[in-house]
Amino acid sequence: MKVYFVSDGTAITAEVFGSAMLSFFDVKIDTKSVPFLTTVDKAMGFCQQLEEDAKSGEVPLVFYTISDHIIRDKIQASCGHCYNLFGDLLSPIEKALGVPARPTAQKAHGIKEGVYDGRIDAINYALANDDGCSVKNLEEAHIILLGVSRSGKTPTSLYLAMQYGIKAANYPLNEDDFESNGLPKVLKPHKKRLYGLTIEANRLHEIRTGRMAQSKYASLKQCRYEVAEVEAIYRQERILYVDSTHLSVEEISTKVMQDMELERHRA
Amino acid sequence: MKVYFVSDGTAITAEVFGSAMLSFFDVKIDTKSVPFLTTVDKAMGFCQQLEEDAKSGEVPLVFYTISDHIIRDKIQASCGHCYNLFGDLLSPIEKALGVPARPTAQKAHGIKEGVYDGRIDAINYALANDDGCSVKNLEEAHIILLGVSRSGKTPTSLYLAMQYGIKAANYPLNEDDFESNGLPKVLKPHKKRLYGLTIEANRLHEIRTGRMAQSKYASLKQCRYEVAEVEAIYRQERILYVDSTHLSVEEISTKVMQDMELERHRA
Repeated sequence: MKVYFVSDGTAITAEVFGSAMLSFFDVKIDTKSVPFLTTVDKAMGFCQQLEEDAKSGEVPLVFYTISDHIIRDKIQASCGHCYNLFGDLLSPIEKALGVPARPTAQKAHGIKEGVYDGRIDAINYALANDDGCSVKNLEEAHIILLGVSRSGKTPTSLYLAMQYGIKAANYPLNEDDFESNGLPKVLKPHKKRLYGLTIEANRLHEIRTGRMAQSKYASLKQCRYEVAEVEAIYRQERILYVDSTHLSVEEISTKVMQDMELERHRA
Repeated sequence: MKVYFVSDGTAITAEVFGSAMLSFFDVKIDTKSVPFLTTVDKAMGFCQQLEEDAKSGEVPLVFYTISDHIIRDKIQASCGHCYNLFGDLLSPIEKALGVPARPTAQKAHGIKEGVYDGRIDAINYALANDDGCSVKNLEEAHIILLGVSRSGKTPTSLYLAMQYGIKAANYPLNEDDFESNGLPKVLKPHKKRLYGLTIEANRLHEIRTGRMAQSKYASLKQCRYEVAEVEAIYRQERILYVDSTHLSVEEISTKVMQDMELERHRA
């Protein structure tokens, strides 16, 4: 089944919402995003595409978010199964808020002054403070992620920065730390902002093997040892932690923000 | 006005959709995400929170995506203005697809086998091939972003990797390149995958001043020179490019994928 995510902007909202919606259905789906559909001409071209799809098989599904009502009407009048994502909710929300919706173009994923710079700053911060490569800026961190190598620290810190403008440093714990009394001294002043990641030893072994097969680093024995040690440190130091084995970057990030009570505002 | 984004998962769908919806209204909003609301107990606690909010001022808005109908009913019966984001569309889509929605928990932002590893790979690739720091893996790139320092290459490459599993290398163009006949030799075999970023000189001057005030690097004169030169290269070499000055990372990424006809599937 062909599915289109269509918008006069990035189409990210249609994509996120439409994909979530479709995950309820056990149907093979072929998705395509159509961003920046801002003119009647483009809308007509798109409607023609829908006609062709319909002729050569099934009628496609179309999830759309479009401000201009002329373009919207064109799409709604097409042969596709079309869903105006904001359609049904706009008027109940107008009632609840007691103000009318603005007729201006909605730019959910456009640039936001102020907020934007915060995100770029946070990304730069995550990159500069990745894998313990610098410890002089730790005071600036909203959070410091701990974990053994390949337990998910870097993607999580980048996701927190990119989506929420959260400054996340990350610091790898390794054999040296395990043999010398646990938590590195440099982290002690920041204890309230430490958060641990852990991972099942088997999965860690798999990931490390993909990078460095046959090494001591990737051996199941070494992975078991490191995971046991890092969890012992978390418990001993009363550091909150999460097992990343079966979680997506989004889920890990959500858990981190929830556990650490970080302000969560999409940038 | 208090607004809650509530879910039994990450609440990302509710957040993205709800925020987009609210951008139509000129109302001061105080948002809070409530993820992992998976039990009736948690739902009751949340409903109590709504009661308290309502008593101390306005009735809050609640955007929710929840699979369990008992939890859903609890929330819908609360004092808030509650919107079940999947509610209205589920049954028309069932009809269009000709299959019933699965009653299982919807995990739009959960882990997806196969896809997941591709994203982590793409993030690692972006990090390893950031700012021209390695050129030996350029064949692997789905796309190679060009631009002067601070024109938005790194956030864009990370966004493409994180959200779409696209491997984006990035390569800075600088004075050496401008003085020695344009496009660096190492990029020539990859011409079809090159994409340029540019930025207004004034904005570049502002950004660079924030990092290195009073330097030649940040001077308006230098910024003007570099921008003029980089755009000349793009035109001369017929490299597609976009002006990032007034665009968010999402918009730049969307434009890049559209112009380069990159497969766009959210990971």
